Amino acid sequence: MAEALNEFGLIAQLFAPLAAGYAGAFGLTDDAAFITPEPGKLLTVTTDTMVEGVHFLPQTSGDLVARKLVRVNLSDLAAKGAKPFAILLNLAIPKSVAPAWLTDFAAGLQRDLALYGIALIGGDTVSIPGPCCLGLTAFGWADPAQCPHRSGAKPGDEIWVSGTIGDGGAGLRAAKGELTGPQAVYLKQRYDLPEPRLALGLGIAGLVSASMDISDGLVQDLGHIARTSGLAAEIQMAEIPLSLAFKTSGHGVEHAVGMGDDYELLFTASPARADELTRIARMCGVDITRIGRMMAGAGVLCRDGQGRDVTPKRTGWQHFETDGPQE
Amino acid sequence: MAEALNEFGLIAQLFAPLAAGYAGAFGLTDDAAFITPEPGKLLTVTTDTMVEGVHFLPQTSGDLVARKLVRVNLSDLAAKGAKPFAILLNLAIPKSVAPAWLTDFAAGLQRDLALYGIALIGGDTVSIPGPCCLGLTAFGWADPAQCPHRSGAKPGDEIWVSGTIGDGGAGLRAAKGELTGPQAVYLKQRYDLPEPRLALGLGIAGLVSASMDISDGLVQDLGHIARTSGLAAEIQMAEIPLSLAFKTSGHGVEHAVGMGDDYELLFTASPARADELTRIARMCGVDITRIGRMMAGAGVLCRDGQGRDVTPKRTGWQHFETDGPQE
Repeated sequence: MAEALNEFGLIAQLFAPLAAGYAGAFGLTDDAAFITPEPGKLLTVTTDTMVEGVHFLPQTSGDLVARKLVRVNLSDLAAKGAKPFAILLNLAIPKSVAPAWLTDFAAGLQRDLALYGIALIGGDTVSIPGPCCLGLTAFGWADPAQCPHRSGAKPGDEIWVSGTIGDGGAGLRAAKGELTGPQAVYLKQRYDLPEPRLALGLGIAGLVSASMDISDGLVQDLGHIARTSGLAAEIQMAEIPLSLAFKTSGHGVEHAVGMGDDYELLFTASPARADELTRIARMCGVDITRIGRMMAGAGVLCRDGQGRDVTPKRTGWQHFETDGPQE
Repeated sequence: MAEALNEFGLIAQLFAPLAAGYAGAFGLTDDAAFITPEPGKLLTVTTDTMVEGVHFLPQTSGDLVARKLVRVNLSDLAAKGAKPFAILLNLAIPKSVAPAWLTDFAAGLQRDLALYGIALIGGDTVSIPGPCCLGLTAFGWADPAQCPHRSGAKPGDEIWVSGTIGDGGAGLRAAKGELTGPQAVYLKQRYDLPEPRLALGLGIAGLVSASMDISDGLVQDLGHIARTSGLAAEIQMAEIPLSLAFKTSGHGVEHAVGMGDDYELLFTASPARADELTRIARMCGVDITRIGRMMAGAGVLCRDGQGRDVTPKRTGWQHFETDGPQE
């Protein structure tokens, strides 16, 4: 397999077909890719890296790794109301990687690029004397007038989330074999293959005051909206939407709001927008739930049904803690 | 230093100041960056990863690593005639990284971003249980009518290179302590801090038929131009420009054409363009040298002064060889 594992052979055999739909990719034969601007649109760019042993378990199939890498990046574009069209891929892989894993990775990539209608337009492939380190940069077009940031929340705005919270975090435990039963299958799937909320994100972009995706835990990520908006956020723990699988998995809502890997949308909007938001979400086939409110102050406060402060001490995933969840 | 090594603290303290000049970066507080298209321009995108122990020696200072990471990417934009304006940065760094190394990295980054007039507009920072894996994506604006690819060479076109060849490869040996003396200082500097030929690349973009930068070795990279153009390339080894430092370092031209890390421009042009190319290069303060010619056929042929075929067997750096130069 020496031939197949040659850097250029790899690119040509596995990845060039994924660039076929985009003229500016030049079949991945050039040093750069070329993007022709869409008149009146804002180019939206996001990038996320996944490291073996940190963001995915070492035994994970190439197919699942590739598809999650695509989806976590598209989730960021969804939060900005951007429509994705292209990606760059940075692969740092050990020389010992099994050719079958790479073939599987390329197949998974192809599957999700086709699903979301986007092209691979460039990247690079290098060897690493260590774990796989996979970077993806995603490009989308957004309407400059409907492009929510984290910082736009106003006092009195309601706080919403899409889908259910905590499934990805519990799914990691399922992936590690720490949970079993039918709910473990569901939760692991939520962890393995998050669903970027692209239609919802595009639909609500002009109605929300702030928006981001939840990747590092709801409380921690809501803290970013609060801080950049110069406000406090108060959430009602009883309102946090939980799946039946999560509720029967031995976890409580206090875990749900501190776990990463949700890839659901978190957004704020004026109460006057509530009906329209709900209508659009229904059209997109996604449930959205109001969980709290922005107000003067700072930080994130979690209240239980009796109004008591139950804000968890551990609020999410950080890469430089000594006790990260996956290491 | 736990506070300083918190992912978000790191970004805020070290990197947010580098985003200050670009409105669409939102001070690195958002999930995505926004690029407003320049009317009539083509967005040119390139990305390169540098891995500790593969692309740089483990003891290399953060300053030098950051600056080389910027420069190798700008070198790709130079070859396409694109004017750089922004970068994304993907940092995968071990938890054990010294805070001083990161501070040094940020300072080096700031220095070269200022030098080249570009902004950091986004990226991500993750931990890796292994070597540093650093990805950079660079954005530039190009004139769609003056944007050379690898594939445009025509039979009879002359082959040119900028600067001198082999210095970077010999400089790696100097960096490893395998070369000493005054020439080793010069060569190591050429390895550590390549000079992206931005002015030259922009100046000649409309005159050349194909262009790329030399990063993996002259013969191997010329092979890409030959293959994508459907032609053969013949070069005269006696014409390859070598620095005095290289010539006195114990290496010969046969090494120069097979070593990586040149980051000089390699381009082809009609003989009718020779005078104008030379004039522009002189204005840019860079020497350019004609080293051969494109013709019908396939592959790269190296000839000595007597016309003999002296094409080296080893033609450049590939990441999945078992005997890579740095591992």
